[in-house]
Amino acid sequence: MSDARASRLAVSTVIFALRTDDDGLATLWTPLVRRTRDPHLGQWALPGGWLPSDEELEAAAARTLRSTTGLAPKYLEQLYTFGGVDRSPGDRVISVVYWALVQSDEAERAAVGENVQWFAADDLPALAFDHNAIIGYALWRLRTKMEYARIAHAFLGETFTLAQLREVYEAVLQKPLDPANFRRTIESTGTVAATGERLAGTPHRPPMLYRYDVATNLTDGTFTTRIPPGKPDPIKPHPRMRT
Amino acid sequence: MSDARASRLAVSTVIFALRTDDDGLATLWTPLVRRTRDPHLGQWALPGGWLPSDEELEAAAARTLRSTTGLAPKYLEQLYTFGGVDRSPGDRVISVVYWALVQSDEAERAAVGENVQWFAADDLPALAFDHNAIIGYALWRLRTKMEYARIAHAFLGETFTLAQLREVYEAVLQKPLDPANFRRTIESTGTVAATGERLAGTPHRPPMLYRYDVATNLTDGTFTTRIPPGKPDPIKPHPRMRT
Repeated sequence: MSDARASRLAVSTVIFALRTDDDGLATLWTPLVRRTRDPHLGQWALPGGWLPSDEELEAAAARTLRSTTGLAPKYLEQLYTFGGVDRSPGDRVISVVYWALVQSDEAERAAVGENVQWFAADDLPALAFDHNAIIGYALWRLRTKMEYARIAHAFLGETFTLAQLREVYEAVLQKPLDPANFRRTIESTGTVAATGERLAGTPHRPPMLYRYDVATNLTDGTFTTRIPPGKPDPIKPHPRMRT
Repeated sequence: MSDARASRLAVSTVIFALRTDDDGLATLWTPLVRRTRDPHLGQWALPGGWLPSDEELEAAAARTLRSTTGLAPKYLEQLYTFGGVDRSPGDRVISVVYWALVQSDEAERAAVGENVQWFAADDLPALAFDHNAIIGYALWRLRTKMEYARIAHAFLGETFTLAQLREVYEAVLQKPLDPANFRRTIESTGTVAATGERLAGTPHRPPMLYRYDVATNLTDGTFTTRIPPGKPDPIKPHPRMRT
């Protein structure tokens, strides 16, 4: 195999925030940066840049994100590495892609300008490189992960009502959810706990505020939550374990 | 930031297979390759190699895997990219790590020799570079993913008994599972379907054979499986969707 072409490393980040429109419907939005050089001069692209050899991957993602959009998200996680041989002209570019979820109020404070704009994540123009496919993958992961992990938390404050939590699910999954079913499902997972406080500023029957139960693992799967505790005893060493 | 140090790209693969010991207990095993050059000469390491600039990431993972262990797994997926600045002396090495799950019979046919050996995944010696941490992360991902995805399928043939499926879960999660609870949980997810056939070669009450329901998504989460179909109707366009 010939190695004549150089391979270069880049780091990019997909950012999602919820934005509520005039009808009160929340939608996923993502900030993009206009390219100021070739290739794809003038097209919109993910925030990112080359990886300096002395900078950690996540630090590079956070830095390029901050310098383009002004955002410093709490939730920043590696998503996937895109390295298709033909995804860029010239040198081969391998992009380690991170993703970030930001709360609406933080998103509203983010930088916008001629070269930074927010777009509806499900209604994007043709982007530079394979960035449409990358955002499509990030949306798929977000929608999948919403179904088993407490990732919705990243879009919410410390406390929230079940209606607010349901709105996050509805916006991400793009479908209405039956409120009573939603309440039952959430309560059966045991991942949120009532705080005992109620939403301020709502005169009649103010809704209960909830928070995520910090004792819960990030992934709240079938087998850890459904098997009755102590039967069989998970503390008892399994014969397979060396003690 | 100085860019004096070069960055190089490598691809490595973590492979897991189940092996049953003399007591009939299944455990996770992983093949490792002895390093034949510095750094870490003589230490065990993940199968892998440098990424040629004209080879796709997954193809490079499959090729290095095949050339060292002779394995060609059905399940090969990108796991994570490890790029810590100090994970290797000399040039900085960014490793795109894949993981593969193989069935026991395939694992038994795999190459072994002076420089390739299988180890119990939870009882490894000190490996080269950060490979202990990488395998630890892969184990965590496998255990987490077992709880919401049909990943156990990768360790099984086309059809299997519920006892065989439970053995996979017990081996991966390293804890005994109550057979009746396990059956109820699996049946409630709707991810496996009885074939109508029974296990051959078992004279008394041969157990039913099951297969994974191909209509099920790879990720079988709470919200797609539990909300009663048609209420609310997922086909009906949501006001949020542009039609």
